[in-house]
Amino acid sequence: MRPLTIESLNPALLKVEYAVRGELAIKAEQYRVKLLDKDPGLPFDRVISSNIGNPQQKGLDQPPITFVRQVAALMEWPALADIAPDAFPKDVIARAKELYAEIGSIGAYSHSQGVPYIRKNVAKFIEDRDGYLADPNHIFLTGGASVGVSLLINMLISSPTSGILIPIPQYPLYTATLAQHNGVPIPYYLDEAQGWGTSVEEIEVALDKAHQQNVVPKALVIINPGNPTGALLDEATQIKLVHLCEKYSLVLLADEVYQSNLHKPDQYPFTSFKKIVRKIDSHVPLVSFHSISKGVSGECGRRGGYFECVNISEPVIALMYKMVSVGLCPPLSGQIGVDSMVRPPNPGEESYELWKQETDTTHQALASRTHTMAERLNSLPGVSCVDSPGALYLYPQIILSQKAQEVARAAGKEPDAFYALALLDATGICVVPGSGFGQKKGEWHYRLTCLCPGVDEYVGKLENFHKSFVEKYGL
Amino acid sequence: MRPLTIESLNPALLKVEYAVRGELAIKAEQYRVKLLDKDPGLPFDRVISSNIGNPQQKGLDQPPITFVRQVAALMEWPALADIAPDAFPKDVIARAKELYAEIGSIGAYSHSQGVPYIRKNVAKFIEDRDGYLADPNHIFLTGGASVGVSLLINMLISSPTSGILIPIPQYPLYTATLAQHNGVPIPYYLDEAQGWGTSVEEIEVALDKAHQQNVVPKALVIINPGNPTGALLDEATQIKLVHLCEKYSLVLLADEVYQSNLHKPDQYPFTSFKKIVRKIDSHVPLVSFHSISKGVSGECGRRGGYFECVNISEPVIALMYKMVSVGLCPPLSGQIGVDSMVRPPNPGEESYELWKQETDTTHQALASRTHTMAERLNSLPGVSCVDSPGALYLYPQIILSQKAQEVARAAGKEPDAFYALALLDATGICVVPGSGFGQKKGEWHYRLTCLCPGVDEYVGKLENFHKSFVEKYGL
Repeated sequence: MRPLTIESLNPALLKVEYAVRGELAIKAEQYRVKLLDKDPGLPFDRVISSNIGNPQQKGLDQPPITFVRQVAALMEWPALADIAPDAFPKDVIARAKELYAEIGSIGAYSHSQGVPYIRKNVAKFIEDRDGYLADPNHIFLTGGASVGVSLLINMLISSPTSGILIPIPQYPLYTATLAQHNGVPIPYYLDEAQGWGTSVEEIEVALDKAHQQNVVPKALVIINPGNPTGALLDEATQIKLVHLCEKYSLVLLADEVYQSNLHKPDQYPFTSFKKIVRKIDSHVPLVSFHSISKGVSGECGRRGGYFECVNISEPVIALMYKMVSVGLCPPLSGQIGVDSMVRPPNPGEESYELWKQETDTTHQALASRTHTMAERLNSLPGVSCVDSPGALYLYPQIILSQKAQEVARAAGKEPDAFYALALLDATGICVVPGSGFGQKKGEWHYRLTCLCPGVDEYVGKLENFHKSFVEKYGL
Repeated sequence: MRPLTIESLNPALLKVEYAVRGELAIKAEQYRVKLLDKDPGLPFDRVISSNIGNPQQKGLDQPPITFVRQVAALMEWPALADIAPDAFPKDVIARAKELYAEIGSIGAYSHSQGVPYIRKNVAKFIEDRDGYLADPNHIFLTGGASVGVSLLINMLISSPTSGILIPIPQYPLYTATLAQHNGVPIPYYLDEAQGWGTSVEEIEVALDKAHQQNVVPKALVIINPGNPTGALLDEATQIKLVHLCEKYSLVLLADEVYQSNLHKPDQYPFTSFKKIVRKIDSHVPLVSFHSISKGVSGECGRRGGYFECVNISEPVIALMYKMVSVGLCPPLSGQIGVDSMVRPPNPGEESYELWKQETDTTHQALASRTHTMAERLNSLPGVSCVDSPGALYLYPQIILSQKAQEVARAAGKEPDAFYALALLDATGICVVPGSGFGQKKGEWHYRLTCLCPGVDEYVGKLENFHKSFVEKYGL
C-alpha cells in the first residue's frame, strides 16, 4: 500500500495561497491555545485577530443586530411566538410568520438558487438602491460571496490560457480561486498616491502584457469599496471601466460586499456597477456580489450573500443553476440573514428604534476608529497610510530597512511577513502581510482590520512595537 | 461587445449532469407555481417532491427535532434564556450556554475546519460508535457532505486520466463532481439480484477495464447504506473492500450519511469503515462522510456535516485545511446542528423523553412506509423492487414495453425519463429516472423517496398511473 502523498494530488491545489488564514493566523491560533495555560510565558494576555474582517469574533464582540437574531430565533423554533409572545416585538413575530408561510421549515432544502420570495426581496432592494429593475430569476443566493466568486471563476476559466484581471492589492480569494481552477491572474496596479485609485490606463497596460503572453482575458475584477484598500470609485471612473469591458469583451465581476461600509459617504458615496451599466445602457455582462458578512450586519458565521447577473443570457443562467444545484442549496440561516439585510425594520415599526441605534453605533464606531488609526499610524516613522473611506481595513505602507530585509531573508521570510510575525510575537496582534494581497516590488504593507474596540490599547501596542522594531533595525 | 456565450465557458461544466434537480424537478417547480393559479387545469392539486431526500419540505413536513431547534434558537438570540427562561427545558439552556462559552457569537467565522469544541464532540461520537480513537484535528466540519466530497474529488483528480470508482447506481453528486473536475468515472455495478450487493469481483472487472483505457484509479467510492439502493454492507464484504483498496492503492471514500437510517437493524446493521480499517489494522487512507441532512434529523437546510480522515498524512491534512480556509468556514447553524446530532439529550435530562419519542416516531414511520411501498410496488405488473433495509429511498425496476421505448425515443427522451415525466404530468409526483443514477443497459428504474406521510394516497396514485401506463403501452 502506497501512502497518499501530496505529490499524487491535484497540482493546481498546491499553488493555492490564502494569506488571510495562512501562517500568521495559524500561529495566532497556537498562541490562543497557549494562553489557556496557567503560565503561558507570553508577553501578551490575549490574541487580537486583525487578520480578518470578522466583527463578531471573541475579543472584538461587535454585537449582532437584535432584529436579525430575533427573526432567526423564531425561524429556528416557530412555536416560540406562541410560547413566549412577549419576548418579541410585534413586527418581528409578523416577519417570522410571513417568512415561514413562504419558506416552511428552515430544515428543508430550498430552491437551489435560494428561496424565490427572498430573491424577490433582494430584487426590490436593488431596485430601490439603483432605480433600475432587477430580475429575481437572475439573482442567486449564496453561502457568502466567496462561493459565488468561486463559481464564476470556475465557469470563466475555459483553458489554462484564460486569465482574469485582478487589482493589486487584492483580496486573495481571487488568486487562490484562479490557482485552484488553473487560470492566470492578470494583475493591474492600484495607485496608492491617489488613495488607491483605479486607472483604466493601468488596466490597459496589464491587458497588453497579457496579450503578449498569449493569455486570453475573460473578466475584470473590481472590488468597490476596495479590499484591502477601502477606496471608493467615482462614477466617471466606473463609466470608463464599463467602456473598457465593452472594448475588450470582458465580463465585469463587481465585488461590492462593502457597499454599506462608508465612513465619509458625502465625499465618497457608493454607486453600484448595476446602476452604471443601466444608466449608460451598456451590454457588458456584469455579476455583482454582496454579502451579509460585512456592512454593519457582520453575520460572517451564517454564510449568506447573493450575486446578481446583468446582461447574462438564459443558457448561461441555466448553467449556473445546474452548478449550484449540485451543491443543493445555500444555508437557510444565511438566506434569512440576506432577507433581514435587504428588509430592515421600517420607521414606525416596533423594532425600528433599536435597529437604528445599533446600526448607527456600529457605523460611527467603525468610521471614527478607522480615522483615528490612520492618523496615528501616519505619525509613526516610516509608515504612511491612506485614510480609507470605506470597508473595514487599513493598508499602511511600511518602510523596512536594508538590515530588516536581510534578517528577514536569512530567516526565509518575506520582509513584511517577518515584520508581521514579530508584531504577533510581541503583542498578540495578528495582521496580514502585504505580500498576501500583492504590492509593487520593493514596497511593504500590511492589512489590519479597524474592528478592535479598545483603539487606544490596540494602536498603542502597534505604535510601541513599531518604534522598537525601528530602533532595532533602523529606517 | 461579444455577448457571453456558453461556448466561451469552461467545457467541463457543460458535461455536468445532476438529475436529482434536473428536468423533472424543474418541471415540478413549474407545476407548483401553476397550482397557485385560480384555475390551474391540472389533474392533481399538489406536487409531491419524491425526487430528493428532503424530509422537512412543504407537503412532507417531517417535524424537526425540538431539542435541535431549541438549542439553535438560543444560539441565535442568547438573551432569550433570561427573557423567557420558562420557554426552554433546563438542559437546553445549559447546553446553549456551554456552546456559547466555547463558540461565542454564531455570527463570527469559526476555525475553517469547524469549531474545535464541536470537532472534539464529533470525535467522541465516533469513538463511542466504533470503539477506536478519533482525532479532532483530522475531522473537518462541512456545509453538508457534498462540500467534502467535492473537495476530495478536486484533490484526487490530478490529471485528466485520473479516475474514481463509483457504484452504479450511484448518487449523481459523484459523476457531477467528477465531470466538473475533469476526472473519469470508473463504474462498477451493484447486484440487484443480491439486494443491490457490492462485489469485489465486479470492482476488479472495472479496474481491469480502467487500466486497459489508461485510466489511473485513485479512489473507491462506497455508499453505505446505499443511495439510491438502501443496501447495507456486511463486515465480511467491508473487509474485502479494504483489502482491495490496499491491493490497488486506492483511497476509500465512504459515504456514510445514511448510517442511522436503518429499517431492520438486527438483520442489516451498520458498521463504519473506520471501525473495519482499525479492526484489521489497515493503512488504507479513508475519508468518511456524515451529514445532518439525513438520519431522523433531516436538517437539510442548515447545511451541516463532517468528514473524518483516517490514515491521511499531515501534509495532506494541511492542504485540506488550506483549501477549506479559502471558503472561510462552514455555516455555524450547520455546525451547531452537527453538535446536536452527536450529543443528543441523555436519559434523565429534561429533553430526553420528547427527543426519544420524536426520533422513534420518525424511524418507525420511515421503516414501515418503506416496507409497505416496496410490497405494493412489487405487486404491480412489470415492477420489481428490493425492499430496502436502509436510507430514504426505493429504486424499483420497471419493465418498459418496446412500444413505450419507441414512443419515448421519438420524443427525444430516455424511456425511464419518459415514464417519470408521464407520472409527473398525471399525478404531480416527481421521481428521478434511473438514467440519472445509472443502470445496466436495457434496464429501467426510478428512485423515489419514502418520506411522503399519506402512504395510501401516494402509492395509490403511483399504482393507478402505472396500471394506465401499462394499459396504454403494454408490458
